Amino acid sequence: MAIKSMHDLLVDSVKDIYYAEKQVLKTMPRMIKKISSNNVKKAFEQHSKETEKQIARLEKVFKELNMTPKAKKCPAIDGIIQEGKEVMDEISDPNVMDAAVIGFAQKIEHYEITSYGTARTFANHLGMNKLASLLQNTLDEEYATDDKLTQMAQSEVNVEAVEASA
Amino acid sequence: MAIKSMHDLLVDSVKDIYYAEKQVLKTMPRMIKKISSNNVKKAFEQHSKETEKQIARLEKVFKELNMTPKAKKCPAIDGIIQEGKEVMDEISDPNVMDAAVIGFAQKIEHYEITSYGTARTFANHLGMNKLASLLQNTLDEEYATDDKLTQMAQSEVNVEAVEASA
Repeated sequence: MAIKSMHDLLVDSVKDIYYAEKQVLKTMPRMIKKISSNNVKKAFEQHSKETEKQIARLEKVFKELNMTPKAKKCPAIDGIIQEGKEVMDEISDPNVMDAAVIGFAQKIEHYEITSYGTARTFANHLGMNKLASLLQNTLDEEYATDDKLTQMAQSEVNVEAVEASA
Repeated sequence: MAIKSMHDLLVDSVKDIYYAEKQVLKTMPRMIKKISSNNVKKAFEQHSKETEKQIARLEKVFKELNMTPKAKKCPAIDGIIQEGKEVMDEISDPNVMDAAVIGFAQKIEHYEITSYGTARTFANHLGMNKLASLLQNTLDEEYATDDKLTQMAQSEVNVEAVEASA
């Protein structure tokens, strides 16, 4: 599909995010399996459920666009996931692993933050307020998740890993 | 290289960012060429110069680590760049293009924000304060660039594109 208008660019962005969210949902069990800290594991399990709701919300976005939900292959999220998996495969120490998995999750979150933020801005300019509001809801959730991950990275996980590997 | 400690994870992260910055610097002329708005073009040219300084700063980070600068192939930034190029190739309208190039640049910025943020946190926990401070300097610059891009996306560019494509 050629992108001829801002509306086309918005549709392209939504298809990209839909693909990304589905790939992330498929990857989360592999990430959760690698985590040792119970707190971190719980946070990831909770975020996995939230991701399912975010996918359902994207299906509402497609409805607002009068379209059947359709994913578009997104090399960016594929690359982020490939890189995260490669790093996880190089680690055996459980505390270093937790720090790495949190870093991996934050790369995913930031990709989602910028994708939802950009699509929300496109929708606002097109005057599609309901659609913009749906995207904003998820954007708020992604920011909250990223903050939680930053807190976990700064508090329990890395300190343990430093001690374990010192 | 197996990652056995937090120090190894920090080194791995720095090599990843070094590769990413170099790939971004190589891609920027192609992005700048596609931009129509003079303001946006100027901002990108300025950021290209800033990226050169950030690469030089990473070389100081390697010095702090007593290492020769070395890049590690980073599938995440490769995927982000591939996706941005693919989207640019689908667009001919100059205003839609400007909106898309800004969105592409923000995906790069957010990747860099999370990479520098994570590496800075690792350095802090390892007590490597000078190194953490170098990474924090670039992190602050990346946040400022992202804010500038958000302002451009919300003000001049997209509105023009909506009007042009309505």
